[in-house]
Amino acid sequence: MQFVSRNLQHLCKRATRGLYKHNSICKQLLRRFTVTARLGDFSKWGTTKKNRKVKIQIRQDMSDPKIEDILAPLRNNVKEQGDYVRKLKSDGAPELDIKKAVVELKLRKKLLEEKELSLSETIEFDRARMDDLLKRRFFFDQSFAIYGGISGQFDFGPMGCALKTNVLNTWRSFFILEEQMLEVDCSILTPEPVLQASGHVERFADLMVKDIKSGECFRLDHLIKSHLEKVISDKKTNENVSAECKDIIIKLDGMTKDEMAAVISKFNIKSPITGNDLTEPIEFNLMFGTQIGPSGLVKGFLRPETAQGIFVNFKRLLAFNQDRLPFAAAQIGNAFRNEISPRSGLLRVREFTMAEIEHFCDPNDKNHPKFENVKDLSVFLYSACNQMDGKSAQHMTLGDAVLNKLIANETLGYFMGRIYLFLIKVGIDPKRLRFRQHMGNEMAHYACDCWDAECLTSYGWIECVGCADRSAYDLTQHTKATGVKLVAEKKLSAPKNLDVCEVVSNKVIIGKTFKKDSKLVQDALAALNESNINALETEINENGETELKLSNSTVVKITKGMIEVKRYQKTVHVEEIIPSVIEPSFGIGRIMYAVFEHNFKAREGDEKRTYFSLPPIVAPLKCSVLPLSGNSEFIPFVKHLSQNLTRVDVSHKIDDSSGSIGRRYARTDEIAIPFGITIDFDTLKTPHTATLRERDSMGQVRINLDEVPNVVRDLSNGKLTWLEVEQKYPKFEQQETTEVQ
Amino acid sequence: MQFVSRNLQHLCKRATRGLYKHNSICKQLLRRFTVTARLGDFSKWGTTKKNRKVKIQIRQDMSDPKIEDILAPLRNNVKEQGDYVRKLKSDGAPELDIKKAVVELKLRKKLLEEKELSLSETIEFDRARMDDLLKRRFFFDQSFAIYGGISGQFDFGPMGCALKTNVLNTWRSFFILEEQMLEVDCSILTPEPVLQASGHVERFADLMVKDIKSGECFRLDHLIKSHLEKVISDKKTNENVSAECKDIIIKLDGMTKDEMAAVISKFNIKSPITGNDLTEPIEFNLMFGTQIGPSGLVKGFLRPETAQGIFVNFKRLLAFNQDRLPFAAAQIGNAFRNEISPRSGLLRVREFTMAEIEHFCDPNDKNHPKFENVKDLSVFLYSACNQMDGKSAQHMTLGDAVLNKLIANETLGYFMGRIYLFLIKVGIDPKRLRFRQHMGNEMAHYACDCWDAECLTSYGWIECVGCADRSAYDLTQHTKATGVKLVAEKKLSAPKNLDVCEVVSNKVIIGKTFKKDSKLVQDALAALNESNINALETEINENGETELKLSNSTVVKITKGMIEVKRYQKTVHVEEIIPSVIEPSFGIGRIMYAVFEHNFKAREGDEKRTYFSLPPIVAPLKCSVLPLSGNSEFIPFVKHLSQNLTRVDVSHKIDDSSGSIGRRYARTDEIAIPFGITIDFDTLKTPHTATLRERDSMGQVRINLDEVPNVVRDLSNGKLTWLEVEQKYPKFEQQETTEVQ
Repeated sequence: MQFVSRNLQHLCKRATRGLYKHNSICKQLLRRFTVTARLGDFSKWGTTKKNRKVKIQIRQDMSDPKIEDILAPLRNNVKEQGDYVRKLKSDGAPELDIKKAVVELKLRKKLLEEKELSLSETIEFDRARMDDLLKRRFFFDQSFAIYGGISGQFDFGPMGCALKTNVLNTWRSFFILEEQMLEVDCSILTPEPVLQASGHVERFADLMVKDIKSGECFRLDHLIKSHLEKVISDKKTNENVSAECKDIIIKLDGMTKDEMAAVISKFNIKSPITGNDLTEPIEFNLMFGTQIGPSGLVKGFLRPETAQGIFVNFKRLLAFNQDRLPFAAAQIGNAFRNEISPRSGLLRVREFTMAEIEHFCDPNDKNHPKFENVKDLSVFLYSACNQMDGKSAQHMTLGDAVLNKLIANETLGYFMGRIYLFLIKVGIDPKRLRFRQHMGNEMAHYACDCWDAECLTSYGWIECVGCADRSAYDLTQHTKATGVKLVAEKKLSAPKNLDVCEVVSNKVIIGKTFKKDSKLVQDALAALNESNINALETEINENGETELKLSNSTVVKITKGMIEVKRYQKTVHVEEIIPSVIEPSFGIGRIMYAVFEHNFKAREGDEKRTYFSLPPIVAPLKCSVLPLSGNSEFIPFVKHLSQNLTRVDVSHKIDDSSGSIGRRYARTDEIAIPFGITIDFDTLKTPHTATLRERDSMGQVRINLDEVPNVVRDLSNGKLTWLEVEQKYPKFEQQETTEVQ
Repeated sequence: MQFVSRNLQHLCKRATRGLYKHNSICKQLLRRFTVTARLGDFSKWGTTKKNRKVKIQIRQDMSDPKIEDILAPLRNNVKEQGDYVRKLKSDGAPELDIKKAVVELKLRKKLLEEKELSLSETIEFDRARMDDLLKRRFFFDQSFAIYGGISGQFDFGPMGCALKTNVLNTWRSFFILEEQMLEVDCSILTPEPVLQASGHVERFADLMVKDIKSGECFRLDHLIKSHLEKVISDKKTNENVSAECKDIIIKLDGMTKDEMAAVISKFNIKSPITGNDLTEPIEFNLMFGTQIGPSGLVKGFLRPETAQGIFVNFKRLLAFNQDRLPFAAAQIGNAFRNEISPRSGLLRVREFTMAEIEHFCDPNDKNHPKFENVKDLSVFLYSACNQMDGKSAQHMTLGDAVLNKLIANETLGYFMGRIYLFLIKVGIDPKRLRFRQHMGNEMAHYACDCWDAECLTSYGWIECVGCADRSAYDLTQHTKATGVKLVAEKKLSAPKNLDVCEVVSNKVIIGKTFKKDSKLVQDALAALNESNINALETEINENGETELKLSNSTVVKITKGMIEVKRYQKTVHVEEIIPSVIEPSFGIGRIMYAVFEHNFKAREGDEKRTYFSLPPIVAPLKCSVLPLSGNSEFIPFVKHLSQNLTRVDVSHKIDDSSGSIGRRYARTDEIAIPFGITIDFDTLKTPHTATLRERDSMGQVRINLDEVPNVVRDLSNGKLTWLEVEQKYPKFEQQETTEVQ
């Protein structure tokens, strides 16, 4: 997953929040910035009962002309400002002016979006009830809760873990198997130089200050901003100071550590909680650091993304692919980010599972042979342009979007299509799914185009999958850092003649002269480029000798007899290229959370009877086996059925507890089991039959006991639909509602 | 995975190494103890070419009487010493004497084992050639190699990763699905108190000292021992000093940090490499530490085993299981150990994947309903008794072993059987698999019985799976640390009358008196036991008031009206029990390594043509698709076949490169692909057919193209054997050997 400028993200958030003017709000916000990670801080991730229900507005095409009338002035406001930003950019205006204008643009966008949402279809969603179910049936819950817990860490219980496994297996089969990608499994502990090259050591950090007595931490930019806003809002503040503060707030994002330290000192800013002095600004890197080995000298980090493991293995993977491009490598694994204040359940956590693909291709040919398969797919696109122009997201086929250059290339478009299909398959509601393009300012420094697959939840639109064209950034960086060329060879359309200039060394003389250093000397000679060679030749011809610096920094004398310079022409059939990388990057926890929200349901007329309508393919267990009562005659049938289900790999749960069938169905509905088999007195008769029930419709059929395992297997992997089963087998008439009573 | 006393492990190793007398050996050993983890230390994990071949002796039943004649005196030697150890123990001899005797016992055992091995069947194994293949085809290789690498870290390439995924999926289906275990997925980052309770913070450490100038690290006990041995072997050393040194060496294992520091100082021990001074002893914990959250105040570790995540979730899991025992929870995940000197490829690494099961059961009933299924399984058992008596490991059925109390209980025996079957299923050679019981001294402090499944490799017998009865240790520890009772309720055979004595508090008065603290007061009152209550009652009756300490350490006054003491009889139907835990713990990397060794083969008459005969169920890819040549008429057939294989979930690799079929078969054999489909000119004719080839026998049949996908699927998941395929389809006669030429 790529990281965009965190400062910029905060800029957006600030803008969307509006300029809060009251001290009380400032204080409130400040408290939220306070570090919350400490033992005993078992943050209640569930919603409080007070705000039970949230209305979620599903964004739709705004085709109603009346709605458009209401939105038109707001759209114009955005477009006006968008055009202004474009103009500033094309005029090469100072960056500060552009920043100011972008803040205003985002404010206007926010107003438009809010109005749009208020006019669209809504779903009522009861987050408290869902959180309660998730905890009660241990889908997931806070880690180490008996020790007080740590915020931002979660354990998946049996059902959450099975869902996760199924999502990952579906992902593996959908991407790796079907696209024949090269899956790797790389180390989590990463030595510092690797993350220095990738930019994480330098950039993946926030500045903070600490209360010198209590040790409490504050994000530096947040602290300065809220303090200055307090100063501005103070009536006693004179106009000059107020203007200075406003100016600083605007400049804040671009300020260096020292400049911010100067502001802290000038305005005498203290801890807003205790009034104590603050430390000097500290760069707080969001990576978890550790030492590898006992010496304490090898600094390492827990990887903040899985991608780097693939990049550093590029040469091996290319070789495995018989040196051919394009190819894709993929990795499923955990990554870690030491968030300052984790929140929103699974959405902002400190350790999380990612599934990342790095598709390596020729930078000059980003077409994709299978684009054809997805080009007619109509997806909901929210382009950077539309965001700037105040327009809504719009439905468009991927084919058109690539044709119009809205999406940069076919490969990017192909993966967007595959991402879309995958998300639908695991249970995301297509109405609550959009692709939002990163705007110029928002995009990571290395990306040339980036679209996020966002899912609408009660927390708003959340990024679940990123799909970026990372260009040649990473391979270039690692090549620079290591000297190992991470390149591929590309066949030239026609052979090319090259002028070669090389040093041929006299191994005997060099060996005798430099003894154990002779290899270093030869390496140094081989590393010379043409102009170096020319210079060296000139100097030897003039002075009879020249100096050569070895890799161990010693300087040796090269004399005439040691070398000879050869110049000739060579025909080459290939050229070296640094591949471009298209990266689809999946946040598995976030996808799971969105799947939970999109599939949380309550039975009509019985709000308390809640369940998850998860697609069978990802449902934690595929079916339940319920003996009607504790009658011992049922036992051999249950045992036999269970064995047969296991034989065809159908995961299942036997519930032989004493509740009524209706109550037990309700319990299995809660954990999303899509199919239920009941063994009853009719089962004892020959031919032995059982009822098979479907969770969402609660429909039931009567079916031969021996047929059940294969039918459930085929239903579970999507080879059979419930409709087909209902058509084939006799309906079972007893009503569930009566059973519940 | 449990941890045994590391000191004891080293004691064993020292004993088996013999007492090395020469300085040069001491120095060599010392160098190996030097810290090797540093960037640029790309340890060559492959074998050097010089020692290509290793002979691996497969241990067998020693039924040949001639062999027994040779071994008899050695066996007697061991038994004599074993009896002596037993006697010392039963006499309650000083621990030091027992230790000495055990060292001698192990030495004698080692001699016996070596002789046994030298008399048994051998396999020639070429580790260098296997390592070469593993690297060349990127099954796995050193992580971050382009940055110099870090020892003890490995990345799995496409084939290694696919094998790992298949091993884990087989594990999941074999254990979790078939036994209906509760799988969880818990956090890796673990706060310190959790690992304090489990004993890892205190015990999972080695003492070391550092060279004060170079920073080089040495294990303290190793350093002292080799220095004192040097002193002893020095002819100038007088007898008193020599005796003192010998005494210290024996006492070393039981010495505290300060005692060892005194030895360093007394003998003026310096760095053996540089002669520099050394630091004070430092406890080097083998866990990777980090800070959670930005304050730096919350210390955490990367978990050294996955088990603790299950224990801290015990209450949730028990509730999920409807409060019933027994049940098993399982977890697959990564664990981390900061080894001082990782070595032996995948066998001793710093991060690794484990699969652990915690089976919770009634401590008084460790029978297992499915023990019946494994009781006739004959496995190779090396009991603690046999190890003490100088006897060999022996074949025995699990039923007999449990009956004879050799294995402590049915549940342990059942899991040993399941471990055995699983290992065979994924490709371990049953001839190279044994279960070795931990001897009394070796067992972790909490275990009451422990058997390791060990695989014989070119590195010797290596532990791949541990199977321990951890008793109630972990749940008890976490209960003590948190105050949260980790217990289950057990139905009593008959109801029991209990005398209850409890404090009933007057909530109104307490609320008024203590305001916001009133909850704490009530909690403190509720926590009192009977004798506390009696004392409290007496004091209130005498003085009208008493003091009560709250959980926040403040002390409050309780007066007469606030409470009332009630005594009554209660009929209870359940009792609280702390479940026992049986823990099978799988080291996935080690199993994979043993599977590689046990399946590495070379074609008869062509040593260079090596391959892995992995069982199809775990083979990275199930089949290859090879068009005979680049003829364009083959393309649609290849494409169509590939789609059909994907449709039935058969992973495959298309190799349309230009080599001969024989060469391409050899390439696919190398990566263990069990089946190969060739599209040739006959395929173009109707009915369309192809050849299907099996890797190990190199047999080929001709088969209808449409039938191929299902046949390969059934072959891959073991529902069909190659023999059956050969019987059903016509043999394809063209010989592979001729094709290669």
